[in-house]
Amino acid sequence: MIERIAILGTGLLGTSLGLALRAAGFKGSIAGWNRGADGAREALAVGAVDLIGSDAIAVARESDVVILCVPIYSTLDYMEQLSRELTPLHLVTDVGSTKGQITAAAARMFNTPARAAFLPGHPMAGKERGGASLGEASLFRGTVWLFTDDPAWQRSPRGSELVADWRDWVAAIGSKPIDLDAERHDELVAWVSHLPQFTATALSGLLEDQVGDAPELKHVGGRALREMTRLGASPFSMWRDIAHTNTAAIEAALQALEQRLAHIRENLRTPALRDEFERANEFRRE
Amino acid sequence: MIERIAILGTGLLGTSLGLALRAAGFKGSIAGWNRGADGAREALAVGAVDLIGSDAIAVARESDVVILCVPIYSTLDYMEQLSRELTPLHLVTDVGSTKGQITAAAARMFNTPARAAFLPGHPMAGKERGGASLGEASLFRGTVWLFTDDPAWQRSPRGSELVADWRDWVAAIGSKPIDLDAERHDELVAWVSHLPQFTATALSGLLEDQVGDAPELKHVGGRALREMTRLGASPFSMWRDIAHTNTAAIEAALQALEQRLAHIRENLRTPALRDEFERANEFRRE
Repeated sequence: MIERIAILGTGLLGTSLGLALRAAGFKGSIAGWNRGADGAREALAVGAVDLIGSDAIAVARESDVVILCVPIYSTLDYMEQLSRELTPLHLVTDVGSTKGQITAAAARMFNTPARAAFLPGHPMAGKERGGASLGEASLFRGTVWLFTDDPAWQRSPRGSELVADWRDWVAAIGSKPIDLDAERHDELVAWVSHLPQFTATALSGLLEDQVGDAPELKHVGGRALREMTRLGASPFSMWRDIAHTNTAAIEAALQALEQRLAHIRENLRTPALRDEFERANEFRRE
Repeated sequence: MIERIAILGTGLLGTSLGLALRAAGFKGSIAGWNRGADGAREALAVGAVDLIGSDAIAVARESDVVILCVPIYSTLDYMEQLSRELTPLHLVTDVGSTKGQITAAAARMFNTPARAAFLPGHPMAGKERGGASLGEASLFRGTVWLFTDDPAWQRSPRGSELVADWRDWVAAIGSKPIDLDAERHDELVAWVSHLPQFTATALSGLLEDQVGDAPELKHVGGRALREMTRLGASPFSMWRDIAHTNTAAIEAALQALEQRLAHIRENLRTPALRDEFERANEFRRE
């Protein structure tokens, strides 16, 4: 049973996770670590963590489960350090948005009877702006939590037990666990998460060029425009790692959208436009 | 002063307009007409109109202000009929999403001292699904109402008075009037309204092809995906007329987005990706 949790990275996701675990009745200790002092203080102030440590590895060592809530390349860096420092009594898990490289690293450095367990995870939750101050206990409610666990991994008995227990906590905070293999995960999120983000970025940047100098016209579009550009506020700092670690799948999705837009453009006055609307209507059918 | 209003077309916009005028304190009569009997009955049942007439032209004749709340080509058809039937004591206005053809028709058939006045209007309000049953008194609150009125038009004294009074009612229901010339209007809405719609249609149709057969995966994307595809539910019946009457401006906007997406695709691993995110962030800066 999980009694001591370490959250490495108390940004939006880490802080929300601490708050959500408490709200769901987790009674054990939650220790935090954050690169920036402000985020650490904020997470402590709102009660997402009980204490903040100054050394991420030391905080991890004193816990049963370590949750990496940092960007993807930082996750890969910490995995390397933690694989040397932790024991078969530990479970490490993460919240990274791409799973190919992380799952491969988990196979290489964790998940043998003599090593710590690693469970690759990806909560489909977030906001277009980050930071501990936006953390919410309800962030994961009604969402899906994707896992790219590998059934071939041979964990210690303690590792297997911690994995099962952590999945129960994910369900307890309101998220539905779904299992996928890592390659299928990365392809799927390229379509349902990365493509919408890059589309919003492209649309927002284009509109800034077109109407950015006329602030009264930026608001003309109303709710529809606000929703279609909300993700335009997303920070490059988070998306850079995603673009670098899922490049081929994102390229394919973007190219498919370019072709679809061109097809619509070439058919604005032909009956094919009706087919495009009907296909889109189908996606939104309840 | 406006005492008798006719709403031709009691769909989402017509019904919402009747409800909004009542909520804002309009004490005169509101007569309605609708092509389908269900929409007419519903508008009457919710109190958006006081009565429903069976003949659109007769309903129009018995009013001071006629509001055309029908698709663009129907608006053009009714303009032709009404220009023959109405007098300098009448004002006709509309809610059409493109204004080039409607404003040109208004110059040709209305707006002389011997004819009825016509005020081309476009409330930036709506929903992805239509119909009287979705009508709301608050639909226009906080929105912008674009007018493409032409200062060169020579109206009857009564026509000018009705135009001023109608603009006051637009403000009273919570919408901000903005004046533009018709060409600039059509170019602007191609960017801030039509481009977001066709983008959502393209994205939704593409995702239906990719994950439509796996309903559990459609929901993986969460709020971000829901927002980016909400407009995918919009009906072709409304957008066909928009595509036909603003084709060149929409083509230009779609092509610019295709190029922007291609630029992002080609730069997923270069520093240019940062520039794209920063430009998009700029659009969303408060």
